This record gives sequence, structure tokens and C-alpha cells, in this order.
Amino acid sequence: MFTIMKDITSSSNPIIKEVKGLYKKKERWTKNLFIVEGVKIVEECIRWGKTPKYTLFSDELFSVNGGEELFSILKNKNSQNLIKVPNSLFRELADTEKPQGILAVVDFNISKIDEVVKNKGNFIIILDELQDPGNVGTIIRSADAFGASGIIMTENCVDVYNPKVVRATMGSLFHIPIIYMKDKKEIINYLKDRKIKIYTTSLKGETYIYDVDFNEDFAFIIGNEAKGVTEEMIKFADLLIKIPMEGNAESLNAAIASSIIMYEVARQRANIS
Amino acid sequence: MFTIMKDITSSSNPIIKEVKGLYKKKERWTKNLFIVEGVKIVEECIRWGKTPKYTLFSDELFSVNGGEELFSILKNKNSQNLIKVPNSLFRELADTEKPQGILAVVDFNISKIDEVVKNKGNFIIILDELQDPGNVGTIIRSADAFGASGIIMTENCVDVYNPKVVRATMGSLFHIPIIYMKDKKEIINYLKDRKIKIYTTSLKGETYIYDVDFNEDFAFIIGNEAKGVTEEMIKFADLLIKIPMEGNAESLNAAIASSIIMYEVARQRANIS
Repeated sequence: MFTIMKDITSSSNPIIKEVKGLYKKKERWTKNLFIVEGVKIVEECIRWGKTPKYTLFSDELFSVNGGEELFSILKNKNSQNLIKVPNSLFRELADTEKPQGILAVVDFNISKIDEVVKNKGNFIIILDELQDPGNVGTIIRSADAFGASGIIMTENCVDVYNPKVVRATMGSLFHIPIIYMKDKKEIINYLKDRKIKIYTTSLKGETYIYDVDFNEDFAFIIGNEAKGVTEEMIKFADLLIKIPMEGNAESLNAAIASSIIMYEVARQRANIS
Repeated sequence: MFTIMKDITSSSNPIIKEVKGLYKKKERWTKNLFIVEGVKIVEECIRWGKTPKYTLFSDELFSVNGGEELFSILKNKNSQNLIKVPNSLFRELADTEKPQGILAVVDFNISKIDEVVKNKGNFIIILDELQDPGNVGTIIRSADAFGASGIIMTENCVDVYNPKVVRATMGSLFHIPIIYMKDKKEIINYLKDRKIKIYTTSLKGETYIYDVDFNEDFAFIIGNEAKGVTEEMIKFADLLIKIPMEGNAESLNAAIASSIIMYEVARQRANIS
């Protein structure tokens, strides 16, 4: 078994150089490749039928919870792409503070618009210029948990294949269709043509989220952490909605606010069916 | 005006040394002092009537949104405690990547148990061994937004005065009573004696949160990010509750899950009144 695995020890090896390069957005989008790091997410990646271009591991993997099991799966599935590196080299490649000794390089999985926008039951999330990788990853994870149909990202969002985004999704990145849109107006028209309502939160919002009928097909726009939803997008909205707040906090974290709305959708849809 | 402000340029000045020391938990708890960094949170600190022991600023403050305004407030309120330091020294002291040139050193504001546990309407959050500073800060911010009565932290939670926690609260730390508890059993008995129900989330939870009556007085236990709620605490619970999830995500981020429950409480209480 072990004979068909490669060993790399030099940091000037082309594969090592490629992995390092993939921390740059430009290189990811040129090669259509991204990095998936850590036991849980590599596991999800394999479980959802993705075949990594190659998988790098170090001995550190075997001291981590679930490491042995993942290694057996990888060995059986694609041993020809399994590469062993020394712990020191792995730490050089890893983006985490406490690397788990496992990292896969995987093809992009950009979806098509008709995977995001369905014939009925649409529950679409639009990310409008979101910048924080942790927030974007967490929103994708929540969207997956609450059964959203898909995610549309505006071009100037943080890259969904940024390693920090990928990690924060905890693997949900592989479960839910995600697309980018260049022209905001074009996609909004595409949605409106299909009678999909456009909602967004706003300080001027007048309807509490529990008074919105989320059983209808809709898309929900989430705004940037600091600047909120852009004026352009607010104009497209059929309804400005708000989350009830009683305390002294002025606002909620962007990932929290959008997850609460997604929960409210799931609550309403669960009660009807 | 400027004559009553101090200028410090040396990093061996005792005040500078004190600030640096306050990044250590032990020193914070010996001196009962903590650091509040950034325009927004220093502003909240002053607005809620706290008088810093001293406030450090650098010229960077005047290029930041809201910096000038905050400086005028500080100058009028406690100029004798206002200390100017060079940008380079400020950056050495700051915990943030892009320092805003303002940092206050403030007394602890630990509450008393009867500020957290009221006669009626109790909506108490118990943090059970939470470790992630961002999560704890975000939970405090959401608790404030949804009108929780107070927060109880178990001793082995991350320090609420950790600068990262303080920052993630966005100032809510000053709005809501927070206490630590040494003995988990003691506090639970204190709550039970007052007929306050104890709820927690669990994989074994059978009641969806929208089916729980949150109009009753209750305390809600939030568990550690990786390990969940401790067995000891689960035994204390009157009801194990769960958030509906339809997708393929196995779980939600701890701050997201608890904020959703707090929203559900606010939703139910808003509909009744």
C-alpha cells in the first residue's frame, strides 16, 4: 500500500510551491483549485464525492481525533494522490495555528444558476460585498443547516475559496450550490422574472421578520459587516425587514443576523408542512 | 487644555508596562483592571458612565471615523487621565491589526447575583466552559440585543476581560450584568429554588425551540464549542431543546445557535405583550 504514496521533503518541490501559491486568490482563480485543511473538512470533501487533485499529510494526523480513520479512507480511495510530508514542512504549508496534519487540493465547484434558483420553494441567500471570511463561512454553514436552496455572491465579496472561509463552512461549502454574479441588476431581474421576492434588512425596515411570509419564494440580501447593504441593492428590495431588538446593543454581527433570519424561515416552513 | 494631558514616549514607563501586563489574565485579575480598545467600545464605556483609570491615544485616532468626536468627549470628561503616545508605541500596545489609536484601562464591572437573577421575567444565559473569545463576545452582544437579564459564566470559560472578548461584545459588556460562578451545583440550586427552569441544547433534545414556552422564567445553558454542554450540566436541565435543522450541516456555530435561541425568546415575548 505505502509504496504507491509519494514522499516530499523539499520545500522547493513543485507541488509544495503550488500549495503555497494557492493562498493567493489570483492563483486559485487561474488554476481553479483551492485548499481544504483539517480532518473534518477533508472528510466532508471526500464524503461528498470530491476527488482531491492531491492530499498532503504529516505524522501529526495520527495524533488528532479522527485522523487514523480519515487516513484509511484516503488510502483506499485515492492512494495515488496521497503525499507524505514532514511535520515541519506541513506547518509551513498550513494556515491554522494548530495544524491537524491534513490538507487537500481540490477543484472549484462553482454551480450553475439553475442549481441555485429552482422552480419552487426558493430560499436564496445573496451576499452583497461581504468581506469577513469567518462571517461568510459561518453564513454558508447556517444556510446549509436551515435548508437554503443556494447562495449568490456579488463579485466583490471575499473569495469563497479563501482558506479561512472554507474552514468556517465546516464542509457546508460542498453541500449547497454557490454562484458568483457580476452584474447585480441582471441577477435581480432574473429572480424577479421568476416571481421571487427580494428581501433585505435595513435600519429603515418596518416589518419584523416574524411577520414576513417566508413560505413564498424569496431571496434575502445580506450586507457588508461595516457598511450594510448597498443603496443599489436596497432599491431592488420588495420589502425591508428587521429583527426585533430590545436591549442596548445597536446591531448584531452579520453572520448572527442572517442566521436568525434563516432560522425564522425554517421555523415558518416547518410549521406549515 | 492640552497642558493637563500627559505625554509618554518611553516603553519603559510604568503605565506602558501596566497596559502590556494587562494582556495576561493573572495580572488583570490581580489588579481588577482590563483593556478596552477601539473607538466604538471606548465610546460605549464612557457613555455607560465608566471612568477609565487612564486613556491612551495616538495621532492615529484623528484619522479614524468618529475619532475626533470621541477625543472631545474624553477631553471634557477626564482630561487628567488622557495620555498621548507616539503611533509606534501605540501599535506596540494594541491587540488589533489596524489600531484606531485609542485604548482605555478600566475597572472590572463584575455584577452581583441579584442583578442577574430578578424577581420575574428571568432570561438568563449560562456559559458552560466556553473557550473561543469571539464566540463569548458575540453571545454577550446578542444577549444584550435580545434583552437577556444577565449572563452567568462558569469558572473555566475564557476570561470575559480578554481583549478579544471585550472587542467582540461591541460594548454590550457594559450593558448587561455578568457574573462568574465557582460551584455549578450551587448556582443551579439557587435558580431552581426560585422556580427558574433550566434549559439546554443537546443532540438528544426532543423539543424544538419554537415549542418551548419562553414566557416562563428560565436560564439557558450554552456548551463548549467542541465538547458541547458538560454531562454535569445536562443532568441539571429541566428540558433538552433543539434547533430545527434540515440541511446537511451537522451543527451550528455556538454563537449562532445561542443567538437563534435568544431571538426565539424575544419573538415569543414580543408576541405576548
